[in-house]
Amino acid sequence: MLVLGVDPGSLATGYGLVENSGGRLRCVDAGVIRSPSRTPFFERIHGIFHSMMDIMGRHMPREMAIEDVFFSKNPKSALKIGHARGAALIAAVECGIRIHEYTPTQIKQSVVGYGRASKEQVRDMVKRILMLHFQPTLDTSDALAAAVCHLHTVRFEATSKAR
Amino acid sequence: MLVLGVDPGSLATGYGLVENSGGRLRCVDAGVIRSPSRTPFFERIHGIFHSMMDIMGRHMPREMAIEDVFFSKNPKSALKIGHARGAALIAAVECGIRIHEYTPTQIKQSVVGYGRASKEQVRDMVKRILMLHFQPTLDTSDALAAAVCHLHTVRFEATSKAR
Repeated sequence: MLVLGVDPGSLATGYGLVENSGGRLRCVDAGVIRSPSRTPFFERIHGIFHSMMDIMGRHMPREMAIEDVFFSKNPKSALKIGHARGAALIAAVECGIRIHEYTPTQIKQSVVGYGRASKEQVRDMVKRILMLHFQPTLDTSDALAAAVCHLHTVRFEATSKAR
Repeated sequence: MLVLGVDPGSLATGYGLVENSGGRLRCVDAGVIRSPSRTPFFERIHGIFHSMMDIMGRHMPREMAIEDVFFSKNPKSALKIGHARGAALIAAVECGIRIHEYTPTQIKQSVVGYGRASKEQVRDMVKRILMLHFQPTLDTSDALAAAVCHLHTVRFEATSKAR
């Protein structure tokens, strides 16, 4: 099973494709969709949509995992994240990819084992779990963490049913 | 010139097409894209994108006017509006439609002549300006108001240049 994890942001959207091959999790591709801050906002949002469609078309994952943003202290940044997150969701529906949403606490709990872990702790654990030979940016590791969280959840549900 | 005005919202997105024919403004089409609150959020956002693409494809406006949301008191609603607004922006870029953003104050100033006008006052003036024979919903009249504001701006700029 190939899962696309996404960490949306209007300036940088992290993405990561994680595969479960025989019980071992493996990073297939990962990176960041960046758009210069000088680019008009609507072009940045369209750029995210376009890049997501491209990544989805190339790898054809059947599932996407994305953070369920419940709350933001700052309404201005909530508005911007909303645009970027919308771009990822629209691309997924267009490509027939099933969407799974997890709260930040669920993702941290699943990857680090501690719901209040820092982004750096999440990155360290993602590197270990996926045995990465490179240092991902925090946007990329957050995206990979969402995918890992979903694969852990699927595995847990399958084990529970089997009992 | 045919202008599409949009008032985005995750439950109801107003739209209105306004044409300037020989100096008189005329409503060509207007309505609301609604999605039941029981529908999953990502499907609602994709529904807005899909409906916008449909409206744009049918009428082929060359310009779109949309409210520039600077500020929202509530981060949760800002996040939702961001998703819906992103859907409209992505559809416009996909269809090659030029995007023009106006602040709520600019729209009210242009339509009612008073930057702090209520939504009902905006609706009353939109009905008069476009000589509507129906009572539009507040989402629809806000969308029509954005289109009227853009056409007023274009007319003002053309007059200023001619002097």
